[in-house]
Amino acid sequence: MKSGSHFLLAARQCEIAELEELARTSELVGAIGRFIHALQRERGISGVFLGSQGRRFAQQRLQQVAACEGAEQEVRAQLDCLDTGSSEVRNGSRLFGRVAVVLHGLAGLPSLRERVAALALPASEASAAFTRLVAGLLAVVFEAADTATDPQVSRALVALFNFMQGKEFAGQERAFGARAFAAGRIDEAARQEWEHLIESQQACMALFAEFASTGVLETDRASQEPAVLAQVEKLRRIGCTARDGRLDPELSDAWYEQCTLRIDAMRSVEDRLTAHLRSVCGERIAQARAELRDQRALLDALAAQAQDSEPASGRWGPHLERSVLELVQQQSLRLQAMSDELEQVRTSLNERKVIERAKGLLMAHRNLSEDDAYKALRQMAMNQNRRIVEVAGAVLSFADMLPGTR
Amino acid sequence: MKSGSHFLLAARQCEIAELEELARTSELVGAIGRFIHALQRERGISGVFLGSQGRRFAQQRLQQVAACEGAEQEVRAQLDCLDTGSSEVRNGSRLFGRVAVVLHGLAGLPSLRERVAALALPASEASAAFTRLVAGLLAVVFEAADTATDPQVSRALVALFNFMQGKEFAGQERAFGARAFAAGRIDEAARQEWEHLIESQQACMALFAEFASTGVLETDRASQEPAVLAQVEKLRRIGCTARDGRLDPELSDAWYEQCTLRIDAMRSVEDRLTAHLRSVCGERIAQARAELRDQRALLDALAAQAQDSEPASGRWGPHLERSVLELVQQQSLRLQAMSDELEQVRTSLNERKVIERAKGLLMAHRNLSEDDAYKALRQMAMNQNRRIVEVAGAVLSFADMLPGTR
Repeated sequence: MKSGSHFLLAARQCEIAELEELARTSELVGAIGRFIHALQRERGISGVFLGSQGRRFAQQRLQQVAACEGAEQEVRAQLDCLDTGSSEVRNGSRLFGRVAVVLHGLAGLPSLRERVAALALPASEASAAFTRLVAGLLAVVFEAADTATDPQVSRALVALFNFMQGKEFAGQERAFGARAFAAGRIDEAARQEWEHLIESQQACMALFAEFASTGVLETDRASQEPAVLAQVEKLRRIGCTARDGRLDPELSDAWYEQCTLRIDAMRSVEDRLTAHLRSVCGERIAQARAELRDQRALLDALAAQAQDSEPASGRWGPHLERSVLELVQQQSLRLQAMSDELEQVRTSLNERKVIERAKGLLMAHRNLSEDDAYKALRQMAMNQNRRIVEVAGAVLSFADMLPGTR
Repeated sequence: MKSGSHFLLAARQCEIAELEELARTSELVGAIGRFIHALQRERGISGVFLGSQGRRFAQQRLQQVAACEGAEQEVRAQLDCLDTGSSEVRNGSRLFGRVAVVLHGLAGLPSLRERVAALALPASEASAAFTRLVAGLLAVVFEAADTATDPQVSRALVALFNFMQGKEFAGQERAFGARAFAAGRIDEAARQEWEHLIESQQACMALFAEFASTGVLETDRASQEPAVLAQVEKLRRIGCTARDGRLDPELSDAWYEQCTLRIDAMRSVEDRLTAHLRSVCGERIAQARAELRDQRALLDALAAQAQDSEPASGRWGPHLERSVLELVQQQSLRLQAMSDELEQVRTSLNERKVIERAKGLLMAHRNLSEDDAYKALRQMAMNQNRRIVEVAGAVLSFADMLPGTR
């Protein structure tokens, strides 16, 4: 018959197994970050290539495609390491579902590139295809962040996820602004969309700042080149305040270049974030292993004492019993404290869930694609001058009034 | 290299594995329900035995101890079936931690019974010891309910958990009232505690009614004998409104008897609830397996068609690609819908979490035992005429003002 001490040790072992799984996931997340960065560059380069009718960035594009393919192989190698056979991966049903979407999207990448090479699609369409891929990859990171049960690891993952999401909005802004400048004009709707991309970045970065470690925040501050930021802000102002809607097409290159400097600097912060995540996992595993060792030694000692003092009954004396009870209660309190902190960290993931749920509702009820559902939410947000998450919340609260919601 | 279809199927397999684990857990929950019922009876019988200085229920007590030991063996057999070796049990760290607390409590049960037999402790102390054991067992059920990721299963578990918790409050009320009547008097504080026990039952039963299936609710209604309920209500009124604080000790037996009739009837509903839980698990597993089979057949057919139509490229034509994409998106939408519904169900578990967190805080800051922390919360609730969960929420919101909370 299994004893209380047996379950106490088993609980600790489960904790270690969870941490080890997170450590493996964080390798995957690192590889995804590098791949997203490569895709973001390819999206930008392809945009300029298509916008210039193939006159510019032809060589860079080929180089970037090769870099992207390398990064893709890295991600695929990590995915191959996922244990899909045991059916025991935590959150496996959601994580694997997201991976299936990503792999399906990657299967379409070669034909997308052929069409870009043949100048056979508009720049905005190519950009949207890359953006969908990046969104799918970020969803995998999100699921990983949502599964973590250790608060410290969860904190590091939430900081990383929000940074990656913020960087992606920066990449979308780069592509958007480059197209607007190149087109030489901007209308009111486009201006609002631009402002929304800026606000979305700020919201993500605020969450990143809330959960990142001091060291990472230091790296982030050091990575920001004031001259670059000043240029980006100046060009944003020019783009978003052009009263007559006319933009100087000559500024497209400068915009693209300054944004790229900024985004490449963000990449180094991302590296620091993944390194931090890895080290947190490592530390927590070492700590949990040491605690398991101590606990086991203590229980062995208590059991030995119990045998000396009460060989007949097999039960422990009141003093020893108290020691074991303290151990058990300590463990319970620790788990409770951990789950409290975890809940606090996870709240920040809820905003994204609210948006996802509202999107799902619009997809089901208005028969919209995922893209169009998001655009509908964004449009409502722009019209009402509210944040997307607020509009999504309102959509959900009206859900009961829709026919056949349940 | 693993394909998108591979991950799609793996996601479904994970779902099945989760459901199978829940099915095993529901066997454990069933055994725990039977054991709790036996402990509740032993608590009541021991109370009368101690209160009558061993003159009453001596024989019943010995019989009930034997029944309890049988039910305990059943639970232990189920616990032995838990896979503590693989470290892969979902939520293992928390579930096993709770089990360790329970097993530690059970180790003290023989000496508790020896002291009861020797009339060596007050009735209230014996009652509190049984109540602690039951609370530990309910915490195991709670962890199981909190892990379920399938909304239908989660719904059945939440209904069962709340019913079990409500039944336990009914058992506490039985013991409390029996002691009050036997003592022949009741003061204002005791009266408030009695009312709180009634309110706590009602809150649990409201949640049970929200999540139980129609069939279970039907069983519940049919199980309630109006004559018994009328008697219980009448004795409650007598107990709680005695203006001069005097109670008729003769009523103690009638109270005990009517409460026991009511609680034994609840036991049959609990059986119906666990049977429902088992059948939901079984249905969902069969359904998920059938879906897996269909999905696999469809993917095989698509792959075969793809080979026929485009043997060279190895990629699927646009039509087939759309079919797979639809499959992938269907799966994502389903998972999303499931987690929405799940979140809704789980909200009801949050109240308990809030109370647990507030308790943990008081234990840490005021150096209170778990019992005393709960009593402190209950006292605050009684003083302020608010629900315990409201007071717990207030305690947590003041937490930031306490020194060293983080």
